[in-house]
Amino acid sequence: MIRIGLIGLGYWGPNLARVLSQTSRCDFSACCDLDSQRLQKAARQYPGLQTFTNVDELLESDTIDAVVIATPICTHYDLAQGALLRGKHVFVEKPLADTSAKARELDQLALATGHTLMAGHTFVYSPPVVKIKELIAAGELGEISYLSFSRVNLGLYRKDVDVVWDLAVHDVSILLYWLDEFPIHACSFGRSCIQKAKRDVANLWFQFVSGPIAWCEVSWLSPQKMRRTCVVGSKRMVVYDDTEPSEKLKIYDRGVSMRQPENFGEFQLTYRLGDMVAPNLSNTEPLLIEIEHFIDCIETGATPRTNGNFGAEVVSAIEMATNLSWRVEEPSYLAS
Amino acid sequence: MIRIGLIGLGYWGPNLARVLSQTSRCDFSACCDLDSQRLQKAARQYPGLQTFTNVDELLESDTIDAVVIATPICTHYDLAQGALLRGKHVFVEKPLADTSAKARELDQLALATGHTLMAGHTFVYSPPVVKIKELIAAGELGEISYLSFSRVNLGLYRKDVDVVWDLAVHDVSILLYWLDEFPIHACSFGRSCIQKAKRDVANLWFQFVSGPIAWCEVSWLSPQKMRRTCVVGSKRMVVYDDTEPSEKLKIYDRGVSMRQPENFGEFQLTYRLGDMVAPNLSNTEPLLIEIEHFIDCIETGATPRTNGNFGAEVVSAIEMATNLSWRVEEPSYLAS
Amino acid sequence: MIRIGLIGLGYWGPNLARVLSQTSRCDFSACCDLDSQRLQKAARQYPGLQTFTNVDELLESDTIDAVVIATPICTHYDLAQGALLRGKHVFVEKPLADTSAKARELDQLALATGHTLMAGHTFVYSPPVVKIKELIAAGELGEISYLSFSRVNLGLYRKDVDVVWDLAVHDVSILLYWLDEFPIHACSFGRSCIQKAKRDVANLWFQFVSGPIAWCEVSWLSPQKMRRTCVVGSKRMVVYDDTEPSEKLKIYDRGVSMRQPENFGEFQLTYRLGDMVAPNLSNTEPLLIEIEHFIDCIETGATPRTNGNFGAEVVSAIEMATNLSWRVEEPSYLAS
Amino acid sequence: MIRIGLIGLGYWGPNLARVLSQTSRCDFSACCDLDSQRLQKAARQYPGLQTFTNVDELLESDTIDAVVIATPICTHYDLAQGALLRGKHVFVEKPLADTSAKARELDQLALATGHTLMAGHTFVYSPPVVKIKELIAAGELGEISYLSFSRVNLGLYRKDVDVVWDLAVHDVSILLYWLDEFPIHACSFGRSCIQKAKRDVANLWFQFVSGPIAWCEVSWLSPQKMRRTCVVGSKRMVVYDDTEPSEKLKIYDRGVSMRQPENFGEFQLTYRLGDMVAPNLSNTEPLLIEIEHFIDCIETGATPRTNGNFGAEVVSAIEMATNLSWRVEEPSYLAS
Repeated sequence: MIRIGLIGLGYWGPNLARVLSQTSRCDFSACCDLDSQRLQKAARQYPGLQTFTNVDELLESDTIDAVVIATPICTHYDLAQGALLRGKHVFVEKPLADTSAKARELDQLALATGHTLMAGHTFVYSPPVVKIKELIAAGELGEISYLSFSRVNLGLYRKDVDVVWDLAVHDVSILLYWLDEFPIHACSFGRSCIQKAKRDVANLWFQFVSGPIAWCEVSWLSPQKMRRTCVVGSKRMVVYDDTEPSEKLKIYDRGVSMRQPENFGEFQLTYRLGDMVAPNLSNTEPLLIEIEHFIDCIETGATPRTNGNFGAEVVSAIEMATNLSWRVEEPSYLAS
Repeated sequence: MIRIGLIGLGYWGPNLARVLSQTSRCDFSACCDLDSQRLQKAARQYPGLQTFTNVDELLESDTIDAVVIATPICTHYDLAQGALLRGKHVFVEKPLADTSAKARELDQLALATGHTLMAGHTFVYSPPVVKIKELIAAGELGEISYLSFSRVNLGLYRKDVDVVWDLAVHDVSILLYWLDEFPIHACSFGRSCIQKAKRDVANLWFQFVSGPIAWCEVSWLSPQKMRRTCVVGSKRMVVYDDTEPSEKLKIYDRGVSMRQPENFGEFQLTYRLGDMVAPNLSNTEPLLIEIEHFIDCIETGATPRTNGNFGAEVVSAIEMATNLSWRVEEPSYLAS
Repeated sequence: MIRIGLIGLGYWGPNLARVLSQTSRCDFSACCDLDSQRLQKAARQYPGLQTFTNVDELLESDTIDAVVIATPICTHYDLAQGALLRGKHVFVEKPLADTSAKARELDQLALATGHTLMAGHTFVYSPPVVKIKELIAAGELGEISYLSFSRVNLGLYRKDVDVVWDLAVHDVSILLYWLDEFPIHACSFGRSCIQKAKRDVANLWFQFVSGPIAWCEVSWLSPQKMRRTCVVGSKRMVVYDDTEPSEKLKIYDRGVSMRQPENFGEFQLTYRLGDMVAPNLSNTEPLLIEIEHFIDCIETGATPRTNGNFGAEVVSAIEMATNLSWRVEEPSYLAS
Repeated sequence: MIRIGLIGLGYWGPNLARVLSQTSRCDFSACCDLDSQRLQKAARQYPGLQTFTNVDELLESDTIDAVVIATPICTHYDLAQGALLRGKHVFVEKPLADTSAKARELDQLALATGHTLMAGHTFVYSPPVVKIKELIAAGELGEISYLSFSRVNLGLYRKDVDVVWDLAVHDVSILLYWLDEFPIHACSFGRSCIQKAKRDVANLWFQFVSGPIAWCEVSWLSPQKMRRTCVVGSKRMVVYDDTEPSEKLKIYDRGVSMRQPENFGEFQLTYRLGDMVAPNLSNTEPLLIEIEHFIDCIETGATPRTNGNFGAEVVSAIEMATNLSWRVEEPSYLAS
């Protein structure tokens, strides 16, 4: 059975620990964190767990086959590289790295070493997102016109990254998974309201050669929580609201089409208003599905759905959007 | 009593007719449309109404003091100019004109002739929008960080204009009313999904020198109707949802602030989570409030809240956003 | 074309007037009310309308074929009887009469005279209610287990009747239409909170021989408006929420069933969780459908869906529930 | 520190185990269940835990000061009695016992032995329920007119009890806590839809001498989950919706009052429509608050809010309602 070590017990790590211990598909055998109190707590919760405060010792250990990395983003590259070079399979929490160059390098290294590298884009494994992918792939939605994403709430401010690198990464991973295409244009707009030079609200735009456009609103500074995605196709339209306890996905048989004018005269628009269907979806936790997919890929040699290349594309798309940023941070005539 | 003539009985005109007949503050005395069937229907509904198919006859009539113009946007300028030059007070449905140059000219002409000119930005008269204006003006929200607008639904496609000139005009009028400031930067992004060269989905960005940023999502091609506006201030946050039958306005006593570090160490963020208040608001129809404001201004000589200058600024802001449009309509390498 | 006279221009009458003038299927030719101001307003709105303050004159008029009665409930019997005896077809707003004996008598009189008598149970003509009737009749829901109705809001207190006779009449008409069966048991529970001896909150229970039970909550004293009905069948479950702007009807492919134990041991319950479908429904106003059904029945001699017998059964069921009332209005030991 | 043993690791027990281990206020030292697999799992999760399959051994142990009982309802009496007689403090999951006679006996025994006995009515410790109690006690709602409870969902069918003893117990505990008064009248109505002789849907009515009435709808057979309670007072009205992620409590400044007629004429009703306030409430888990209250009471000798007497009153009120049951289970003429 695959023996897995977890690196990082901060905000997200404990969820990974829980899932690693929950599945019977792997042996959750080791854990590493700089904070010994956190380690002791984990050791109490998961008896038999080896604990490390020095990550190199964990990476060198020959009783571990794979690592799961849940540390601050700026450390992803070094840790993942170190693990791959020591022959481990590697799962890295999203985003894969803090630059696309580093993410590409990790992808190449994994290919060269023949080990599994997977980026932790959990939403790509969630049942509603997978269902929409299936609908798109089967042509059920027709041609995609546009996509709209809202991911806003009050907090939680992260220390290491801004709201785009924290929240928009989710939406970009979903977008690239659904469309299976890299944008030809992206830009962003936002503001650092509470802290200097750290955006807490932002809006991103993406354009795709095959037609679709997308926008994405993210915020740490919103009074109501929203997790709403709308996909509009020429045949059907979908609203995916992740804050709903059930009926997260609503598929509308609705649309507008142009009718040929009969003799002279104008083109006519006709509206189609059909039924709405909310398909029943599995309640399995996406994180569990994701971790079991990682284990499957290690065992079978299959390529993860969110492999190094996918992880690098997400980082590239975020870079593309943030490099073309349209907020004039300090108008020059104000500075004088 | 002010005698008012209505020009245009198409999509919106009948609502103005209803309100003009409903108020006891004016004499709804004449009506003009090119379609004589519509005129006959209006004559049956409002006995005593003079009807015209020739607008010049209505404008020349000395039994009319003021006109309300609800015709296609491209005709606003000519009709409003003609009415002002013949000594009438003029109410023009939004937007005031199809270019800011024409809108400015109308504003100047109204000032020169001393007649009342008012742009029909109905939302500026709706109780929730007025309440938020009061909260902002009284400093209850603190400094405004950002504003987010969603105004989407399925249809109704207009023949004369695109979705920005149809729907975003509402949000821009609300935005300028609230902030009382013209943006220093604006751009837009959108797509013509159903008809050629007529955007049916779009996103607009605005930046203001005093700090706030705003984005606005509009669509004629959305499966669910949304009329949601979020205003985030340093003291309070507001969500205004116009699709709610009651409790359209929710005021959240919430925020994030930075605490000085006590000795060494990092700045700390603290979250404030207080009560939410949904103030009781009048149910009076905004269109009625707006028309009675027009009559008041004629009678007292007061300047309308949405006067010619305001109407021109809305048109300018829309032009500013649409002139800087970030969708590459047809990538060159595809065209070859 | 059938010439119709409307009796009563109080709270509900103006809606009937609007619909009578809107349809091209009849000639809305006369109107009667004790209040001459209301009559004048109607005459202005509907040019050509004959007006009466004396109802007998209207009933005697030979230019009228049918009457629509929208007066206080205590007057329904006398007016409907007078109209039937003068050879008119009669539509009576719900409830048909204030006692089941009078309602039965009207039904008999209509049968004897051969004229159309219809009770104005509007909800029985609304698209969601009709759709549920179709689902039940086609066996799509399986056997009906129970039904739950909530019809609550703040106000509007009626002068002539209590909340049961005002609001629960709607639910009882829907219930009898769906099940096509008269209850074998009914009782009620309520309280007069604001006015003496006039219940403003109440709960009703109904039991049917074929199995189903139903309860119905009505209130004029509730902070939120609810119009929610739940129908649970052995195959499917339906929620009908009339406050929703769209998706008023949700059909759930859900249920619980008992599985035979394989060898020894307990019966096992299994849960079925399938898709939810919200069928697209017509937006036609139920009141218009209802009035056109009345005209159809007059023209063709067909029996109205809500004929005299149906109207009498609704009144009987309300009587059955209110006659067995379980609130001890004034405990005896308190009175001494 | 109080040493606590948990009896029962079935459906609910694991939640109690989690909370007992989470608080620093007690020593979660022992656990008992007939199923040794469950015990082993608990032992792994909570290192240091003593485990028992024989409950008498746990009760005899002198290393345990108090027990928490989460076993099938029919065993509550024997286990609680045994524990009290062996000098333990006792927490019993709701309901305290399966008859009011037994519940009274346990209450008397606890008083006689001087040990703490507490019934596990968790909702009585939840922040929204406590907030409403405070509003009522402070007179903020005025006189209570009526209360309406809906607690419905699909499943979870319990083996040992019907839906009234499972779900309505929650609402009755809340009702008695709020009103601090025992009903003078109660009855119920329901049906066994899936299994013989086990009600899965029911409606209960309660009347109180001081004026209020209440009804309560419970179901295991409903397509949508509802946890909605409405409290209507003469001054304010409250809606408490426990399915809302935030804003569970909404306080409406609304009402209807009767105005004295000025000279002759009728009493006039006036409607008051003021603001709605959703107070911010603590997110602390009620189960944790409840368990810490139990520990407090043991340490200080204070009487628990849900002491033996309260637990017995809840059982009595349920008995009162179920003893007067208005469904004719099998009409006689059908049986022949």
